[in-house]
Amino acid sequence: MPNDTPVFDDLLAAAARIAPHAVRTPVLHCAELDRWAGATLLFKAEHLQHVGAFKFRGACNAVMALDDAVAARGVITHSSGNHGAALAMAAGVRGIPAHVVVPEGAVASKLANIQAQGATVHRCAPTLAARESTTARLQAETGATLVHPYADPHVIAGQGTAALELLAEAGHLDALVVPLGGGGLAGGSAIAAAGRQPGLAVFAAEPEGAADAFESLRQGRHVTDMVPDTLCDGLRATLGAPNLALLREHAVTVLLVSDAEVVAAMREAWMRLRQVIEPSSATVLAAVRRHPGHFAGKRVGLILSGGNVDLDALPW
Amino acid sequence: MPNDTPVFDDLLAAAARIAPHAVRTPVLHCAELDRWAGATLLFKAEHLQHVGAFKFRGACNAVMALDDAVAARGVITHSSGNHGAALAMAAGVRGIPAHVVVPEGAVASKLANIQAQGATVHRCAPTLAARESTTARLQAETGATLVHPYADPHVIAGQGTAALELLAEAGHLDALVVPLGGGGLAGGSAIAAAGRQPGLAVFAAEPEGAADAFESLRQGRHVTDMVPDTLCDGLRATLGAPNLALLREHAVTVLLVSDAEVVAAMREAWMRLRQVIEPSSATVLAAVRRHPGHFAGKRVGLILSGGNVDLDALPW
Repeated sequence: MPNDTPVFDDLLAAAARIAPHAVRTPVLHCAELDRWAGATLLFKAEHLQHVGAFKFRGACNAVMALDDAVAARGVITHSSGNHGAALAMAAGVRGIPAHVVVPEGAVASKLANIQAQGATVHRCAPTLAARESTTARLQAETGATLVHPYADPHVIAGQGTAALELLAEAGHLDALVVPLGGGGLAGGSAIAAAGRQPGLAVFAAEPEGAADAFESLRQGRHVTDMVPDTLCDGLRATLGAPNLALLREHAVTVLLVSDAEVVAAMREAWMRLRQVIEPSSATVLAAVRRHPGHFAGKRVGLILSGGNVDLDALPW
Repeated sequence: MPNDTPVFDDLLAAAARIAPHAVRTPVLHCAELDRWAGATLLFKAEHLQHVGAFKFRGACNAVMALDDAVAARGVITHSSGNHGAALAMAAGVRGIPAHVVVPEGAVASKLANIQAQGATVHRCAPTLAARESTTARLQAETGATLVHPYADPHVIAGQGTAALELLAEAGHLDALVVPLGGGGLAGGSAIAAAGRQPGLAVFAAEPEGAADAFESLRQGRHVTDMVPDTLCDGLRATLGAPNLALLREHAVTVLLVSDAEVVAAMREAWMRLRQVIEPSSATVLAAVRRHPGHFAGKRVGLILSGGNVDLDALPW
């Protein structure tokens, strides 16, 4: 993989590489929710993936692609939660050490997941600068390979395998909607769509309080200085450079959703689809409901990205 | 179907009758939950059935089996919730009227489901006598056919189709565990197990606060005078006579669980399996955890019976 952005063949390689380890998650459908949304919705249930998030796909692909000698020194990342747990589990499968830098303020259930997977956790201040400096220091000390949560080409390729499976199982779609944070899932999904169903409209749902991708596309420059303010804790990351390039290359449309819309959609998903999904996952359903012009009456694929929530702190 | 209790061929007929209308629900597995329970657990996800409960199977079978002239006068039942919604939806599919007698104190979300399906709701006092007298009066007035929630042979046969599907998809099992209230699901599941995998051990999980089936088997007489006291609102019904006969015929073992055990198991299911299940569903997981002598290290099929909960009144 010579370039920063993977291509369709890299997704096929990732699919083969992770197949022995990842869950082939089901595609769920719910007539009640179709009526609420005014469209036919096919949900790829990545909250049922290992560690409760699609993140296992990219982390597993990155870990399994390492040479043995490099792998032996371990892997390291910074993550507010799901990617950290995913990398820890993937490292555990390969039998190598994992270090995870976790900012203060991370969701307790996600921190617990990382620790449960046997990683060494390092806390830091909740800023991108603190994350990166702590990570760099540990990387120098241990020789571990950095597996970035979303700007890494192997990670992007791995995340794209969820859309590959959705497209294989759901048949022809009119639109595909995925959550957008750092852009690993969105970038990988766009590659999958272009490779499997050229012309398929791909949408990325982004919280209004973390709209750096929306602004980057609108302003024509990479906006990296926004301070996120959203309850979608999985989508607070700053869009990566290769991820922005993929959004542009594949003409992905970013749709904004408010936190209130996300909470309403999350509640509908719990009540009607009867799935425990986290706020980040609910952005896709909120986007379909808020932007009917793109979706009304259509056959829409959606990726539910994760299901790690604190049951004692629900947002309603 | 000449007798009160159906036989295996009646289940096969029910499966064919409801196939065009019922959801073929997925079988879910979760490594995290296996570790918690100490067994390999395969969950039949009937909370993803129409109206969020296995009850649609039995109601649909009963409605579709009616002669046209009889069907035209409609159907009637008494139900604290899931069976009422299921019968209403089945009647809607056939285009006939449905009357549902609902006791005061029913879970709000379940009452809403019944109304959403277009049934005529009649409230009554929360006693078996009030349910039955109100139902009999309305039956006389309308000519509607009574579809009992669990003592009806078509209903029992329909409920048994969930276990049929589980056994077809999960392969060989060491044990099957289902929730036990009136005994429709337990009776039907026992018939399915005997027909598909003779010798399979069948367990029924019953709340300690509604242990009429446990006592009926222990005392050797049909105990019908217990006042239920359990948060498992779907399992408060009094065991039916044909249902007791089926439990005896198939040597079903009743396992008791406390409400506290049910709440703990429900929380695990929400957090690890990431499924919104109601307390009645969680009895099966609670039973596996409480009675390891029957299940440790084994391959266990479990039926999750329903997923209708009030998200604003969670039991933890």
